[in-house]
Amino acid sequence: MIKAGIIGDGYTAAELIRILAGHDEVEVVSVLSTENVGRRMDQVFPHLTGFCSLECEESLPEKLIGRCQLVFLALPHGLSVNIALTLLKNGIKCVDLGADFRLKDASLYREYYELEHQAPQMLEQAVYGLPEIYRDKIRNADLAANPGCFPTGAILPLVPLLKEGIIKPEGMVIDAKTGVSGAGRTAKFASHFCEVNEGIKAYGVGTHRHGPEIRQELSFAAGMMVDMIFTPHLVPMNRGILSTCYAQLAAHVSPDSVREALEDWYGKEYFIRILPPGTMPHTKWVYGSNFLDIGVYTDPRSGRVVLISALDNLTKGASGQAVQNMNLMLGIDEKKALMFAGVHP
Amino acid sequence: MIKAGIIGDGYTAAELIRILAGHDEVEVVSVLSTENVGRRMDQVFPHLTGFCSLECEESLPEKLIGRCQLVFLALPHGLSVNIALTLLKNGIKCVDLGADFRLKDASLYREYYELEHQAPQMLEQAVYGLPEIYRDKIRNADLAANPGCFPTGAILPLVPLLKEGIIKPEGMVIDAKTGVSGAGRTAKFASHFCEVNEGIKAYGVGTHRHGPEIRQELSFAAGMMVDMIFTPHLVPMNRGILSTCYAQLAAHVSPDSVREALEDWYGKEYFIRILPPGTMPHTKWVYGSNFLDIGVYTDPRSGRVVLISALDNLTKGASGQAVQNMNLMLGIDEKKALMFAGVHP
Amino acid sequence: MIKAGIIGDGYTAAELIRILAGHDEVEVVSVLSTENVGRRMDQVFPHLTGFCSLECEESLPEKLIGRCQLVFLALPHGLSVNIALTLLKNGIKCVDLGADFRLKDASLYREYYELEHQAPQMLEQAVYGLPEIYRDKIRNADLAANPGCFPTGAILPLVPLLKEGIIKPEGMVIDAKTGVSGAGRTAKFASHFCEVNEGIKAYGVGTHRHGPEIRQELSFAAGMMVDMIFTPHLVPMNRGILSTCYAQLAAHVSPDSVREALEDWYGKEYFIRILPPGTMPHTKWVYGSNFLDIGVYTDPRSGRVVLISALDNLTKGASGQAVQNMNLMLGIDEKKALMFAGVHP
Amino acid sequence: MIKAGIIGDGYTAAELIRILAGHDEVEVVSVLSTENVGRRMDQVFPHLTGFCSLECEESLPEKLIGRCQLVFLALPHGLSVNIALTLLKNGIKCVDLGADFRLKDASLYREYYELEHQAPQMLEQAVYGLPEIYRDKIRNADLAANPGCFPTGAILPLVPLLKEGIIKPEGMVIDAKTGVSGAGRTAKFASHFCEVNEGIKAYGVGTHRHGPEIRQELSFAAGMMVDMIFTPHLVPMNRGILSTCYAQLAAHVSPDSVREALEDWYGKEYFIRILPPGTMPHTKWVYGSNFLDIGVYTDPRSGRVVLISALDNLTKGASGQAVQNMNLMLGIDEKKALMFAGVHP
Repeated sequence: MIKAGIIGDGYTAAELIRILAGHDEVEVVSVLSTENVGRRMDQVFPHLTGFCSLECEESLPEKLIGRCQLVFLALPHGLSVNIALTLLKNGIKCVDLGADFRLKDASLYREYYELEHQAPQMLEQAVYGLPEIYRDKIRNADLAANPGCFPTGAILPLVPLLKEGIIKPEGMVIDAKTGVSGAGRTAKFASHFCEVNEGIKAYGVGTHRHGPEIRQELSFAAGMMVDMIFTPHLVPMNRGILSTCYAQLAAHVSPDSVREALEDWYGKEYFIRILPPGTMPHTKWVYGSNFLDIGVYTDPRSGRVVLISALDNLTKGASGQAVQNMNLMLGIDEKKALMFAGVHP
Repeated sequence: MIKAGIIGDGYTAAELIRILAGHDEVEVVSVLSTENVGRRMDQVFPHLTGFCSLECEESLPEKLIGRCQLVFLALPHGLSVNIALTLLKNGIKCVDLGADFRLKDASLYREYYELEHQAPQMLEQAVYGLPEIYRDKIRNADLAANPGCFPTGAILPLVPLLKEGIIKPEGMVIDAKTGVSGAGRTAKFASHFCEVNEGIKAYGVGTHRHGPEIRQELSFAAGMMVDMIFTPHLVPMNRGILSTCYAQLAAHVSPDSVREALEDWYGKEYFIRILPPGTMPHTKWVYGSNFLDIGVYTDPRSGRVVLISALDNLTKGASGQAVQNMNLMLGIDEKKALMFAGVHP
Repeated sequence: MIKAGIIGDGYTAAELIRILAGHDEVEVVSVLSTENVGRRMDQVFPHLTGFCSLECEESLPEKLIGRCQLVFLALPHGLSVNIALTLLKNGIKCVDLGADFRLKDASLYREYYELEHQAPQMLEQAVYGLPEIYRDKIRNADLAANPGCFPTGAILPLVPLLKEGIIKPEGMVIDAKTGVSGAGRTAKFASHFCEVNEGIKAYGVGTHRHGPEIRQELSFAAGMMVDMIFTPHLVPMNRGILSTCYAQLAAHVSPDSVREALEDWYGKEYFIRILPPGTMPHTKWVYGSNFLDIGVYTDPRSGRVVLISALDNLTKGASGQAVQNMNLMLGIDEKKALMFAGVHP
Repeated sequence: MIKAGIIGDGYTAAELIRILAGHDEVEVVSVLSTENVGRRMDQVFPHLTGFCSLECEESLPEKLIGRCQLVFLALPHGLSVNIALTLLKNGIKCVDLGADFRLKDASLYREYYELEHQAPQMLEQAVYGLPEIYRDKIRNADLAANPGCFPTGAILPLVPLLKEGIIKPEGMVIDAKTGVSGAGRTAKFASHFCEVNEGIKAYGVGTHRHGPEIRQELSFAAGMMVDMIFTPHLVPMNRGILSTCYAQLAAHVSPDSVREALEDWYGKEYFIRILPPGTMPHTKWVYGSNFLDIGVYTDPRSGRVVLISALDNLTKGASGQAVQNMNLMLGIDEKKALMFAGVHP
């Protein structure tokens, strides 16, 4: 068994353990924590009773040297850089579920995360961990920057169309709706049940940190700086992100080419399901699973393209994708431990 | 007391009764029904116990002649036309909460509602019942077409900006999110708790019937046919609509003019609350009330305008607005019986 | 206008303002706060925009002397005693929505609230503010101890039956289910959306502080110490308490006498609605209103009595009842500002 | 691979397929349906896309002869009897997820299900499919009557205590709270989102069909007719049942013996988790899994025992337990395909 460690004790850490409990080649041998040192993970997360009796250890990355071949960093941004440096130096591969290695441009990191990046030289080395786009690079990577939950849902439907010149690289709108677990497990007023339940609101309008991450990847795909706006909304549900992406068909392009391009690109991807014409995704259909469903609508008159994607923010949007990256980095079948259906209803 | 009747026994009928219970000049004297004839309204809707002990009568509009001065039609589309004809002929004013008199163009009605309109000559006579836009016409109307719930949330923020030429009349996106009560009280698979709870989906993409209604009013405001796309989403909550409206600042227009125009137009409107800079609306803040809250964001670089509105689909989006129309049509203070705060949390 | 003050800025304070906005004899002139000093109440609670623009003042009760005739104390337990002393000394009546004056036995207070009561002599003076039981005393009271939300739901159905000897004073089970707003507005892990949504749990089993309060009032009614167990549960909803109360018919008592006694006692009570045979209450039917609905079932074979009550924990379970008490204490019609229907659905 | 069939196309059928997708010794080869004949299961249930592309066949049990070794009957009560007769005659084992073979007394079946049982002689042959109680019998059974969801949650905690004489066989109260999926997938008013969300109610008070089933098994355990009352409540959540069971300690029995007995009985059971002292179960911890968690509280003064159990009504309360029974009946490891953790949050 390959040995893995986890630094962090929030929802994504628990989701990693849930998934890896079904992995027959990798075993979690250590969980580092700041707030739950000395408590067993199945006390912190009783749903894991019978699946993980590890006691949380102090959050010192040195503790993992010699014990793990790969470590998942499930930490707030800003904390991963030095830890990753230490681990990589000791030959331990890293999958960072946080935001520290996603933006290639350290000045954007400074602007949006209000922090000076402590090791900008690593940004080149880090591979953006979106397997359906960067699979080969991930296979050879020591450090994967696991994408944000919103970027995963926005980038995957749009990249093929931008790469193929099917949609215009300007005027795009990405209107995303997320469940509450994306905001983490810490008690905050904004996550208070009564402040979320029976309502919907937008937040971070024009300023959300996932905006530049999406723009970066769409611009890489388009080969030029794209123009798009991203607006996240908070929905009264635990899990799930629905991304409604609006774009304009490029000139002289047939409406049918939208669906054709997506089917070409993703037809053999296990985790991407292009829904049949007339069917639009529901986040419930991917609940607790690693799938990303995409629905396609093109208005023949106006040339408006509407792509809607659904994913589970803790699975394909975080820990499931992290395991997918891990499998690639360790030379294991990419789908291992991830081939389960969503829980419905 | 002025006497009013209600035809229909769904959620909007119950909401009319809840609101009118607090009205000291108008009294509901009759409720006509198709499915609950002979049952008392407080048996059908136990929350009305103590507020309405009327027995539902058969749905024959003749029954109301001589008993009512105004009737609310809370019926599925297609059923109101002949009823309204009968009532109007007998000097009874009508507020139609359905869709039969909203579209001025009978061919659009045919296309979207798949019905031949039975009295297209009435379409001119009917006044679109959005008091903040058509107040004077409503005061003199015998027949008010109460707007759809989505149109109310989309039209009110955008009309001033189109009228003043502040935003471009093309490339608009209206991404709306609604609670489930908008789909009515009848048991349907799409309203099944387990099919809605813990998930979000889009529906009617490119084809929803409120699309042409929004387009009509925005085009009137712009003085030309506008280009916009409207996408509704179903959110796991009972009440509320959040409409995220995207537009492009017109050339040579200052970003500040967006907020200024809205404050100019709506500064004295009791039911419209323009939120301060940096605050975006939450449907929870208008829950059970007749308010429509609007938040404003303009991106100075890209000139992208994001207007977000929140309303309660059963109140400002239906029965509250119907009472507002009724008050105007009967020469009563427009706010009468509607000046209550939302229920929070 | 009579002037009232509020000390506290949580959900019950906001609910007081919502209700009193519709009161034409009483006006809220001041809100004292610890955490929101200097902020306007409609900034703290945007649903109150247009209803309360008072700025929160520092939480010094002296500020209210000479400005108010009555003050609502909406504070965590332990904080009200000295404040009430000061206000009463200055001729200001008090309604305490907290727990400091509910238990008549200071040793129970010490045991359950882990605090020495600072003015046990006031416990005799304070009137338990359950108008349907103690109306006359409340009319003459300067200090009303507004009941807990669970006690309101458990005491009202059971008291008549205990007073009349219809049920046995032992072996009672009160299984209660509450919405999350009962836990207050402060961000806590237990109120985190994701920890509540899509699940149900019991809490405080055998130890909840409302247990001795219920036992006190049931024992007063029975004229002897009763034996009962109370178990609260947390339900994924904002508002509402359903109390399922199990008791045993006393010997030689007809099953019909259960309903008869309740109808006799409460037939003329505006806020108590005894539901017809075969109908059991739903918390949705009282949502946002001051009603308490009671459903009755008696098993003829086993003599088991099941009484189920529903109330809104923030209205009849807190602020609505507080206004009811205020009305009585000020000689105003008890129902003033409280005669509105619940919001459904 | 052993071949299995499913008759039915509701939530429990879909859950069977979800679970069996992870089974490496059993394969679902046919799904019979009444309403979805000709549609693929992954069209009816898009979350199963990639997991089951079987087309629903007409609901004729003969279709399964020669194709299956075991069939799951996931049908409304009354429909399984003749089908099971046919299948058994042809050497096909059956697990009935419905209610037709649960009650040993055909007169109770008549009373509660308002149907004459068509093959009462089979009631003796059918084994009540609660593996933790009847494991050996199930191993040898051809026909397993999968228990109701509520009975599973009530029987498992109480049986050991009744068998050992630790609690009294009278005065028991079982107050249960269920998610909505227990009511099935068919659109019904009682399952309408708006009628369930933001509220809680009791239903079937004193008359629910799971009452006699619970009473039967508790009476078998006690060796005498027990006295208990069962009240189910509907909670706004998709999945989960919490059963709060109240009983009285028998005379001369130590409070500690309650926990001891449960730990003795269930210490080696994989799917039953006795929670540590002070911890009470949350349905969220078993969401989507086959576990049943039990929390224990005994009041030393009054001798009142409170046992609280949590399960997922579609898994341990239906399809998970059915697969557990299938495994036993086919001589496969009982836990096969069921060893996954719950999905949290």
